[in-house]
Amino acid sequence: MDHVAGLLSMREAQPFSVYAARRVIDALGANPIFSILQPQLVPLVELQLDKRQEVSGAQIDLGLELLPFSVPGKIALYLENKHAPNFGTQAGDTLGFKITNTKSGKFFYYIPGCAQFNQSLSDRLHEAPLVFFDGTLFHENEMIDQGLIGKTGSRMGHMNIDGPDGSLKAFEKLNVVRKIYIHLNNSNPALNDFSREHAIVTAAGWEVAKDGLEIEL
Amino acid sequence: MDHVAGLLSMREAQPFSVYAARRVIDALGANPIFSILQPQLVPLVELQLDKRQEVSGAQIDLGLELLPFSVPGKIALYLENKHAPNFGTQAGDTLGFKITNTKSGKFFYYIPGCAQFNQSLSDRLHEAPLVFFDGTLFHENEMIDQGLIGKTGSRMGHMNIDGPDGSLKAFEKLNVVRKIYIHLNNSNPALNDFSREHAIVTAAGWEVAKDGLEIEL
Repeated sequence: MDHVAGLLSMREAQPFSVYAARRVIDALGANPIFSILQPQLVPLVELQLDKRQEVSGAQIDLGLELLPFSVPGKIALYLENKHAPNFGTQAGDTLGFKITNTKSGKFFYYIPGCAQFNQSLSDRLHEAPLVFFDGTLFHENEMIDQGLIGKTGSRMGHMNIDGPDGSLKAFEKLNVVRKIYIHLNNSNPALNDFSREHAIVTAAGWEVAKDGLEIEL
Repeated sequence: MDHVAGLLSMREAQPFSVYAARRVIDALGANPIFSILQPQLVPLVELQLDKRQEVSGAQIDLGLELLPFSVPGKIALYLENKHAPNFGTQAGDTLGFKITNTKSGKFFYYIPGCAQFNQSLSDRLHEAPLVFFDGTLFHENEMIDQGLIGKTGSRMGHMNIDGPDGSLKAFEKLNVVRKIYIHLNNSNPALNDFSREHAIVTAAGWEVAKDGLEIEL
C-alpha cells in the first residue's frame, strides 16, 4: 500500500519504471486510477521470484540488479479476504530484495515488511554488509496501548522489534555489518532518540532510518 | 485526482468524512484500493449540486456549510474517454464551493479548477469577500515552453491566468475583496516572488497561496 500509493504522486508525465510481482501488477490493473501512469512512459515490469533483474529508469540503465525473494508476510490490507487462511496471503505477497551494484558487486538487502524470521532468511542475511529491515512496531501491542488502532504488529503482518520472536533477537548472531530499521510506524518509540527503546536498538548495533539518510557502501 | 489521491494518505483508521459528487463516489467505488477507508470510520456523503450541506468530521459538527455548484471543467484524466466530446466530461465533474460559517454567516468561495469563465460565475462571485481560484498555469503554453509535458492549460481543463480568456481579465471588474490563486502547477512562474508574472498578479490585487497560509475572515 505504501509503495503503490506513492505512484499517484509521480504522475503525470514523469518517465520511470515499476518493478513488481504479478500480484501487485494485477492489483494496479484492478484500479483504473493507476491508468494515469502512461504505459509508454511507465513500463510495468514483472519480477520473478529468485530471478535477477537489471533495473532501468526512464530507459536509462541504473547499474543496479534486483534479486527478489519471498519473505513471510501478509497480503495488502485492501486485498484481504477475511474468509481465507491468513487473509488470502500467497507466497510472493511480501518480498525482500537483494540490490547489487552490477559494476562494483557491492550489495545490500531491503526488507521493509516481514512477518516472521526463518532459517532461509538467517542463511541469506548472515554477514551481509547492510540490511534495511522491517521496524514497524517495537512492541506487539503498542498501537493498542497508545489508544491508536486495535491492531497488533502480528495482525498487520509485521514481526516486532521486541520479544522472543522479534527482530532484535533474530539478528543477534547474524553478524550483519550494518543494520537499519525502516518502515517504522509513528507509534514506534524507537523513533524518539531519547527513548529507552531507541537506546535498546542502538546498543544492539541497529540504526533507525531518518529522512534524508544517505549511505555509502 | 489531487483530491482523491490524498485519501490514501489518510488511512488506516482515521475517522473523517468524504463529501463528493456521485461521479467521484462512483470512481472511488471502481477502485478497490479505496476500500482501505473503512465505511464505519469514513462515511462517503453524496453532494447534490446547488444544495446546501452541513459538514461534520469524525461525527463532530464543523460549523460549516458547503454549497457545491458546477463550473466549466474537464473530467479527471484517469476517467477520460478519448472518443467522447470533451473527453466525456459531464456537468458536476468540476465543482466550485461556497463555504459558509453557519454561526457568523461569513463565507468564501473555493474553485480549484475552472476551464472557463461565464456569466453565472461572474454573478456569483461579484463582490465576494474571498475567492480561492484556479491558478494552475500562467501561460497557456508554459509547460510546453519549459520542456515539461506537451499539454496546454486548456487541454488540462484549466483557464490560464494570462490572456483575453484568463482569470486576471475575468476578475477585473468583479470587486472581489480578497482573491488568492491556488492549485498552481510547479511550472507557474507566479510561484516565484521575484518573477514578472508574480508582479503582474500582485499588481492586479491577487495573492498567491503558500504552504502554511492562514486566513481570518
